Amino acid sequence: MDLKTFLFHLIVIYISARVLGEVAGRMGQPSVLGELLAGVLVGPSLLGLVQPTEILTLLGEIGVMLLLFEVGLESDLQAFLKVGPSAGVVALIGVAAPFGLGYVVATLLHLTQLQSIFIGATLTATSVAISARVLSDLGQLKSREGTIILGAAVLDDILGLVLLSVMVGLAQSGSVSWTTIARTAGLAVVFLVTAMTFGNRYAAWFNTLVNRLNTRGSLVSVALTFALLLGYVAEEVRVAPLIGAFAAGLILARTHHRVLIEERIKPITDVFVPIFFVLVGVALDPSYLNPFNEQNRSVLVLAGGLSVVAIIGKLISGWGVLGEPVNRWVIGVGMVPRGEVGLIFAGVGLGAHIITEAEYGAILIVVVLTTFLPPLLLKRLLLKRTPHNKSTRERSSEDL
Amino acid sequence: MDLKTFLFHLIVIYISARVLGEVAGRMGQPSVLGELLAGVLVGPSLLGLVQPTEILTLLGEIGVMLLLFEVGLESDLQAFLKVGPSAGVVALIGVAAPFGLGYVVATLLHLTQLQSIFIGATLTATSVAISARVLSDLGQLKSREGTIILGAAVLDDILGLVLLSVMVGLAQSGSVSWTTIARTAGLAVVFLVTAMTFGNRYAAWFNTLVNRLNTRGSLVSVALTFALLLGYVAEEVRVAPLIGAFAAGLILARTHHRVLIEERIKPITDVFVPIFFVLVGVALDPSYLNPFNEQNRSVLVLAGGLSVVAIIGKLISGWGVLGEPVNRWVIGVGMVPRGEVGLIFAGVGLGAHIITEAEYGAILIVVVLTTFLPPLLLKRLLLKRTPHNKSTRERSSEDL
Repeated sequence: MDLKTFLFHLIVIYISARVLGEVAGRMGQPSVLGELLAGVLVGPSLLGLVQPTEILTLLGEIGVMLLLFEVGLESDLQAFLKVGPSAGVVALIGVAAPFGLGYVVATLLHLTQLQSIFIGATLTATSVAISARVLSDLGQLKSREGTIILGAAVLDDILGLVLLSVMVGLAQSGSVSWTTIARTAGLAVVFLVTAMTFGNRYAAWFNTLVNRLNTRGSLVSVALTFALLLGYVAEEVRVAPLIGAFAAGLILARTHHRVLIEERIKPITDVFVPIFFVLVGVALDPSYLNPFNEQNRSVLVLAGGLSVVAIIGKLISGWGVLGEPVNRWVIGVGMVPRGEVGLIFAGVGLGAHIITEAEYGAILIVVVLTTFLPPLLLKRLLLKRTPHNKSTRERSSEDL
Repeated sequence: MDLKTFLFHLIVIYISARVLGEVAGRMGQPSVLGELLAGVLVGPSLLGLVQPTEILTLLGEIGVMLLLFEVGLESDLQAFLKVGPSAGVVALIGVAAPFGLGYVVATLLHLTQLQSIFIGATLTATSVAISARVLSDLGQLKSREGTIILGAAVLDDILGLVLLSVMVGLAQSGSVSWTTIARTAGLAVVFLVTAMTFGNRYAAWFNTLVNRLNTRGSLVSVALTFALLLGYVAEEVRVAPLIGAFAAGLILARTHHRVLIEERIKPITDVFVPIFFVLVGVALDPSYLNPFNEQNRSVLVLAGGLSVVAIIGKLISGWGVLGEPVNRWVIGVGMVPRGEVGLIFAGVGLGAHIITEAEYGAILIVVVLTTFLPPLLLKRLLLKRTPHNKSTRERSSEDL
């Protein structure tokens, strides 16, 4: 790709994301919704201005890592540990219920057993990125519900990645090694626990290092490199890189420089993150939703069935909260978004010839619906409780 | 390329650039020197950790645009116009002298006429990026000498690009259309003049736009998009995109938000710029410098001859300053760096089979020498004048 095409893609992404994000914001919706719609608009199925090229995909992945890094930076680890048991139960229900229900729906629609297992698995993982962004847009990132949702979503991702490696093993060999399952799950847990346990020591090293450097931009550079490094290590031990970046954020949240890092990393996040969300939109083909096309009907039936169980399966996870005074509907709805993990699953399945293009289309529709509905529902659920919360945040001058 | 490789490249680039940049800084050298050396170290010729992939090259090009955007943002347009005549004469001498001298050296060493013309042309353009960065590292960006150097370097780039399009025309058709030459030169001038003349109006539009947007990160997003957009327009009319980004910076320097844009764009610049400078280093193969290898001798003779005239040709340009009380040595030395434009020229020549790989190697050596020497010389020249200038800057807390 030449520089001109790359610049053109970036300009289209930034302008469309900003304009539709602004429109969404003015209509009282989270701006991420506008960014996703911007992707559908500029993608190959409508205007055809942006293609999901390799470079944009990689930059988007950096974006989602930075988003999770920022979420980690803003997170209170103590609060996370406090909600640990509740988040654990919510995550388990939120994985088991959609998996089982999805398997049943796919089997009833005469798909093979492998396909049904795979489709059940694609419905399991909550999108940490979309949930985090919606909660942030609604100013609910640090509420008790927000903390439980994020904790459970991170656990879901780990469970989802274990399932994915199981699926790929199934597709490649027709059988699954329990060693692989145990290894993947074990490493993910070890990774997060290590990062959190030794966090104070790492934070101290980081402080010393930054204070010793003289050259311009040391703080943001070292912080960013640290996030990329933990992401790389996570990828190396086969945990998702966004989990690594999240762990980096949690660790740096304990340094003296936390506020300054946050302030400096935000402009960088704002450069990379829209690429990710616009690309999610770009991957969606709205023509699959046209019921007047005969060929689409069986896809739409599958999509409809899966969407219903995908939403119900996560909604009931809200009742997994252990006796805390929270709005269970908010938690259930907050767990619904699938987004990138669902897309990664579907892509792997298509590449391994487990599912057909039509079934890929059906999963895409599920991803769209589960991504677009929660912001609308959460907005209503939260508006009842804190009518002035959002507008106050929007007028804050630091958001300029 | 997969995410893991990309992350690995980024991590190696950031760590090596930061460590060697810091070492250079502590030795009293501009940190950009360390970043270039970091590239040589991690590149294929030594450690082989980083390859100059397409994605890194594109990100580096965005980096050099952002660097010029930042330079524009920090520039005082009035000061530029004031030094206009001096900068113009410096630029003209700085293009004509190396071109003529380079042609003579190449002809004396029995190269063809086309090759000699081409090699002369590769010596013409001063690297705005490297000059700007060295001046910034030495705290001389806004001095009278710094302003003349940057003004002349920008003019040089325009003249250089005109020459490049002439060379490519020569290579492709064996003849040159004067219409193409006039068109390229005319468009470059029209572009900069338009950007600067209507700058106040654009600045007012920008203020209105940013003030109307509510969503997070509007300011930096709109500023960045504006820089990319002018870069794209510049590329579209066949002016270098960095000139477009520079013009965007000059325009936004007149908005109310100037200080805030500068503050927010710096972390983004710090993410992209090291990629550019490390990649310049990555492209250099130090084994060409080994005189004990018989095959290298003719390359080294050509490289030596060209380096001498490349340095002398720019040094004498300092005497083009029209009766202002400046240090002409500083200006001459400040015009010496070639860097990216020389590399672009050499790459185009190699691709069009005008020059051989050995001659490409010779030009690379010229680029290295003209890039590495000026920081060392400028440091000495400026140290005499303002012994405490640099250390004050280094200790400033805003550089953290």
